[in-house]
Amino acid sequence: MAERRLGIIMHGVTGRMGTNQHLVRSVLAMREEGGVALKDGTRVVPDPILVGRNPDKLRRLADETGVTRWTTDLDAALSDRNDELFFDSASTQLRAALVRKAIAAGKHIYVEKPTADTLADAMEIHKLAEEAGMKHGVVQDKLYLPGLLKLKMLKDAGFFGRVLSARIDFGYWVFEGDLQEPQRPSWNYRKKDGGGIILDMMPHWRYVVDNLFGEITGLFCIGATHIPKRWDERGEPYDADCDDAAYAILQLEGGAMAQINFDWCVRVRRDDLVTFKVDGTHGSAVAGLIDCWTQERVNTPRPVWNPDVAEPVDYFADWHRMPNLVNPANAFRIEWDMFIRHLYDDAPWPHGLLEGAKGLQLVEQAFKSWEEKRWVEVPKLTG
Amino acid sequence: MAERRLGIIMHGVTGRMGTNQHLVRSVLAMREEGGVALKDGTRVVPDPILVGRNPDKLRRLADETGVTRWTTDLDAALSDRNDELFFDSASTQLRAALVRKAIAAGKHIYVEKPTADTLADAMEIHKLAEEAGMKHGVVQDKLYLPGLLKLKMLKDAGFFGRVLSARIDFGYWVFEGDLQEPQRPSWNYRKKDGGGIILDMMPHWRYVVDNLFGEITGLFCIGATHIPKRWDERGEPYDADCDDAAYAILQLEGGAMAQINFDWCVRVRRDDLVTFKVDGTHGSAVAGLIDCWTQERVNTPRPVWNPDVAEPVDYFADWHRMPNLVNPANAFRIEWDMFIRHLYDDAPWPHGLLEGAKGLQLVEQAFKSWEEKRWVEVPKLTG
Amino acid sequence: MAERRLGIIMHGVTGRMGTNQHLVRSVLAMREEGGVALKDGTRVVPDPILVGRNPDKLRRLADETGVTRWTTDLDAALSDRNDELFFDSASTQLRAALVRKAIAAGKHIYVEKPTADTLADAMEIHKLAEEAGMKHGVVQDKLYLPGLLKLKMLKDAGFFGRVLSARIDFGYWVFEGDLQEPQRPSWNYRKKDGGGIILDMMPHWRYVVDNLFGEITGLFCIGATHIPKRWDERGEPYDADCDDAAYAILQLEGGAMAQINFDWCVRVRRDDLVTFKVDGTHGSAVAGLIDCWTQERVNTPRPVWNPDVAEPVDYFADWHRMPNLVNPANAFRIEWDMFIRHLYDDAPWPHGLLEGAKGLQLVEQAFKSWEEKRWVEVPKLTG
Amino acid sequence: MAERRLGIIMHGVTGRMGTNQHLVRSVLAMREEGGVALKDGTRVVPDPILVGRNPDKLRRLADETGVTRWTTDLDAALSDRNDELFFDSASTQLRAALVRKAIAAGKHIYVEKPTADTLADAMEIHKLAEEAGMKHGVVQDKLYLPGLLKLKMLKDAGFFGRVLSARIDFGYWVFEGDLQEPQRPSWNYRKKDGGGIILDMMPHWRYVVDNLFGEITGLFCIGATHIPKRWDERGEPYDADCDDAAYAILQLEGGAMAQINFDWCVRVRRDDLVTFKVDGTHGSAVAGLIDCWTQERVNTPRPVWNPDVAEPVDYFADWHRMPNLVNPANAFRIEWDMFIRHLYDDAPWPHGLLEGAKGLQLVEQAFKSWEEKRWVEVPKLTG
Repeated sequence: MAERRLGIIMHGVTGRMGTNQHLVRSVLAMREEGGVALKDGTRVVPDPILVGRNPDKLRRLADETGVTRWTTDLDAALSDRNDELFFDSASTQLRAALVRKAIAAGKHIYVEKPTADTLADAMEIHKLAEEAGMKHGVVQDKLYLPGLLKLKMLKDAGFFGRVLSARIDFGYWVFEGDLQEPQRPSWNYRKKDGGGIILDMMPHWRYVVDNLFGEITGLFCIGATHIPKRWDERGEPYDADCDDAAYAILQLEGGAMAQINFDWCVRVRRDDLVTFKVDGTHGSAVAGLIDCWTQERVNTPRPVWNPDVAEPVDYFADWHRMPNLVNPANAFRIEWDMFIRHLYDDAPWPHGLLEGAKGLQLVEQAFKSWEEKRWVEVPKLTG
Repeated sequence: MAERRLGIIMHGVTGRMGTNQHLVRSVLAMREEGGVALKDGTRVVPDPILVGRNPDKLRRLADETGVTRWTTDLDAALSDRNDELFFDSASTQLRAALVRKAIAAGKHIYVEKPTADTLADAMEIHKLAEEAGMKHGVVQDKLYLPGLLKLKMLKDAGFFGRVLSARIDFGYWVFEGDLQEPQRPSWNYRKKDGGGIILDMMPHWRYVVDNLFGEITGLFCIGATHIPKRWDERGEPYDADCDDAAYAILQLEGGAMAQINFDWCVRVRRDDLVTFKVDGTHGSAVAGLIDCWTQERVNTPRPVWNPDVAEPVDYFADWHRMPNLVNPANAFRIEWDMFIRHLYDDAPWPHGLLEGAKGLQLVEQAFKSWEEKRWVEVPKLTG
Repeated sequence: MAERRLGIIMHGVTGRMGTNQHLVRSVLAMREEGGVALKDGTRVVPDPILVGRNPDKLRRLADETGVTRWTTDLDAALSDRNDELFFDSASTQLRAALVRKAIAAGKHIYVEKPTADTLADAMEIHKLAEEAGMKHGVVQDKLYLPGLLKLKMLKDAGFFGRVLSARIDFGYWVFEGDLQEPQRPSWNYRKKDGGGIILDMMPHWRYVVDNLFGEITGLFCIGATHIPKRWDERGEPYDADCDDAAYAILQLEGGAMAQINFDWCVRVRRDDLVTFKVDGTHGSAVAGLIDCWTQERVNTPRPVWNPDVAEPVDYFADWHRMPNLVNPANAFRIEWDMFIRHLYDDAPWPHGLLEGAKGLQLVEQAFKSWEEKRWVEVPKLTG
Repeated sequence: MAERRLGIIMHGVTGRMGTNQHLVRSVLAMREEGGVALKDGTRVVPDPILVGRNPDKLRRLADETGVTRWTTDLDAALSDRNDELFFDSASTQLRAALVRKAIAAGKHIYVEKPTADTLADAMEIHKLAEEAGMKHGVVQDKLYLPGLLKLKMLKDAGFFGRVLSARIDFGYWVFEGDLQEPQRPSWNYRKKDGGGIILDMMPHWRYVVDNLFGEITGLFCIGATHIPKRWDERGEPYDADCDDAAYAILQLEGGAMAQINFDWCVRVRRDDLVTFKVDGTHGSAVAGLIDCWTQERVNTPRPVWNPDVAEPVDYFADWHRMPNLVNPANAFRIEWDMFIRHLYDDAPWPHGLLEGAKGLQLVEQAFKSWEEKRWVEVPKLTG
């Protein structure tokens, strides 16, 4: 059985998500399993080199994971013709510039979202990759969560009939830091450090909504800073000056509406930290990260509006929890497998850099809507 | 114990809500209990006369309820100086004109919402009542539902700390009429008959939000017609041409935000047909029609974002169901009692016609926002 | 509001079903409610005359129910031009002859099933009624049981996708009479008295299958006499010589198959005394007399065949009990209302005598299949 | 304690069932336990040699299980006089030819079902084995499932009285492969590859019915292809052209009837993936793979046919779940033990090759019935 090595320059994977999801649970897991099988039986075995700025962190990560290659010299790494793929999950500010370099060095590209700081940059790196004939992709892991895979199956099965509306409720309480430690880093709440919930989450909503509910054609969005004072990692108070909550209403192709609440200042009384609800003519569903509940139109109870009756009706009762699908893999790993088969087998790949640019487009239009306090259109992007 | 008769001209109470809530459960219930006690111990005993256009319906209602007085001649009824209060729950279109007549005839005024067809008319009848020195009021029953009384208690107790945001989710599935009978009358879905969910529900949201969460200062609202074809009471298909769903985002005095979904095309997966959620710095609550659940900041669980874990967390577990209040009375009856004490005892009365006008103001601003696709301000109304 | 009298000659309603379902719960219930409303608002008020052979029974029934007219002279009753409708629920043997007479006397016809003893007779009375221009109908009450109305809603909603197969399991244990009293009359088990389960139930299966699953085009059927000795009403043993169980396999138009077990010698371990199961590409359902459970394809669990695992899986868990429909009326009454509206309003009426003849056709073909031990076709019947 | 080696030529055990059930859970388990004890205390210790065509698979299996002997040369294996028993669980097409060779080489015979491709071949190998004086057997594992052992105990105890009827419901939904991966290999649904549910399951029904309910004397059987399009292991659509469902009615010696549904296109609402129901004069039982529920005639409830009653009766309530038997062993292992004691102790052995031939006979008669659309007899087979 033939084997084929794939050298991957992994830049900026010393952070929590880079290490756990991309390095350990995806790339190293592939190695352990003997690689990813292509159509002809060949197995592609990834061989990563860790790249970053802090040699101590890199050395420690290499030791812990058994990866033998690491360097702080990105240019040298890019010049090695035996490493064909450039992956980046470092900070957003530098991403577009690094990707330009990597394309120039003849590398394929796979990066975390957002793919750039601005829509213009995101479109440019897409164009460059296309012109250079390189394969390219952006991480859109949420689509491969078990709950959303179930939603997708419902959509593919025509379960909803015509989709009428979607509701996304995202958020939880991020502790201020006075009574107990906060669960998120303080830079998330400072404008100058690239914080803010709109920039963080809008790219996700873009691909989730486009893929599962319908293409976004317009929106109204408004943000808020509900908690202006927080305490940082050292226990010091600081001014939290960027949006920690946002409210959006979207129009989708075909007439459906979507409504999104995303918020770091809410206490959670729902099925999961994020829930996706779809109502259609023939059925409705609510999905969390893992589970999904359905209600068919023939099983829709007749609601009774009667405030005089003491005992409330249990409106959770007529929903059915979907059975689990077979062996749901890690969401990041699924997308890595797909990208590798796209590299060598030209397998279908819906997550190119143009999709990444769409996320940036939605971010920019959301800020514009907020600033001008009005509805904005979301024109179709074409590469 | 002194008794005092209160003659009430009850116009348009042959409909379901007029008969059940206003006549039987409020006015006749007071009579059975020997009237409403004033401060000095005097008991006010209401003596209704039923007024309407259809003599058959009036006679049948009089027979069934034991009310002895009824007439189709409103002018004659208004000219009887022994009847001091004019109540109206007939159709909205005629309301302002009838109220003008009643004020001219020297009657006190108590009416269902909306108080008029337009904000201008609503303001005018308020001004006329004030100038004539008559007492006046509008039905705002939702405030006296057990669930909302609990919310009010939380607010009065300072439970929330500073209120950050509120969310109202209202709605259920109104059957189209093809597979099973619809639960709402078809005129609700026809523009020419005064249908539409914004006109129906916005007056409620105005007084609920103003009273429980904070005065509304601006909003974005957009409606939709999700189901354009329905079947009417005779099983015939018809064009449903008005808004059957709406999505709104509101700014409240003091900086809090409110988000409202109201929709006749959703399947219900929440605690009640309508839920009111409030998140504040110190605590959060979710109220339905009857129940209310709370979560204090010290009881807020640390959310875990980990899609790799198979078993979802139960985010309903850390909420506490509030105990029931003593003998919660019927919401309509509570307000009737208050109004009668206002008539004779000058008791506090927060539900005058100016409050009714505010409901119309919000309706008009919501339609303006939808039409112009932009944020609109909601200026303070003063009488 | 106009009223219109409908004189009904009710023949043979002193039996349990005739009295309870047709007289009391249908005809007399209509009277109490002021009649059946036609499109123009006219109310049709039935006025029954009870006809039979036993004057004592008739007098007693008249007394108990307050019906004023009764007679043992059927000819005289038929000759009264003020009574327009002939209804019969007496014994099957005489039915066709009585219907011929009634048609000749210019009466409309409504009868219990089977409509005759033989297919030839059943076809003849259909033809006679048509030629005479009389309205005619046969009782097919099972279609209006709540459970089957739910099945129909599923079918109308397209819930099943393409129907693949149907299974009917009917039956329960009819006590032999030795240890405890039998629940059914002994004539059911004697050939010479018209007993046998095939004759009793096949007419029902015909209209249920045709209407809910697809027209029957062919079948194999075999009967059995499992219990040859029983004890009668007086505690005397007798030879039970006719079929007390039958097994049939049916082919339906469009390719689906149906399998029917009907049996008076089984102990019941299923959802109801009769269950109707439908499996389709998109969903499945099991209906009893009242309830109905559904399973959508997206909620179909992955079955695990693993006899080594100790704990069996709960295969009842992934089914959803359908909510109840609004105010389900008595099944017999629903059909009476439909027939009366058919009489005067030409409302759609799918239960004419040709449908009754189809029941007889299936009975005859079933016996032929059993006798010749082979598959038989069921050709389309046309009036 | 004396030990005795039994050399077993295990052919075709690299498949899932061969490896797990025959090699690991039966033969190797015996070795670990020190062999199977005979009457005189001698312990028979099996010593397998793995035989097959693919050396890679054989080597891997040998490594994983610690079996030291393997070869691709069957003729060489058969010529080794130290190995006395030939076992085969490879494909059906080659079985009869291999068994002939093994008999000629003087081996005892134990094989999976079906024992041959045709009844003629199955009869021939039985005759050859008898003439050569070799011991022979066929795997009939279902009889040793815990649920069926309980049924057997009921039968042996005379619990049923006279058996009247039996019902077998087998099947579950095999996913088409479009929305989620199918659970069965695609060859099962292609005629040219030996697929079809009748060929797969009829041999099982033959020995289960013969042993537990009564010898089959005649039958009607009809198959169907409900789902003509499926997706294969690579996600490619293919024509599914063989029977994926079948419906059969059987006559048993003594007058009882049996009815069998077997189907890969049903959603399961019953106690197990396969259920066996027996109704007898004195009692009834329903068995799944593991559990068994009983109802004695004295515990049979009086069924109430009353569709007007809102709450359905629970017809599952009056059944009693049988206690578990002591340490039920693996079904395959039980039969291996029996065969080994048959080899050396002449212990009773009801699973000779004639029993295997009976399975083929039922398959051939079922296809004949379907083709000719008529009842067929099942004559007694004698060796």
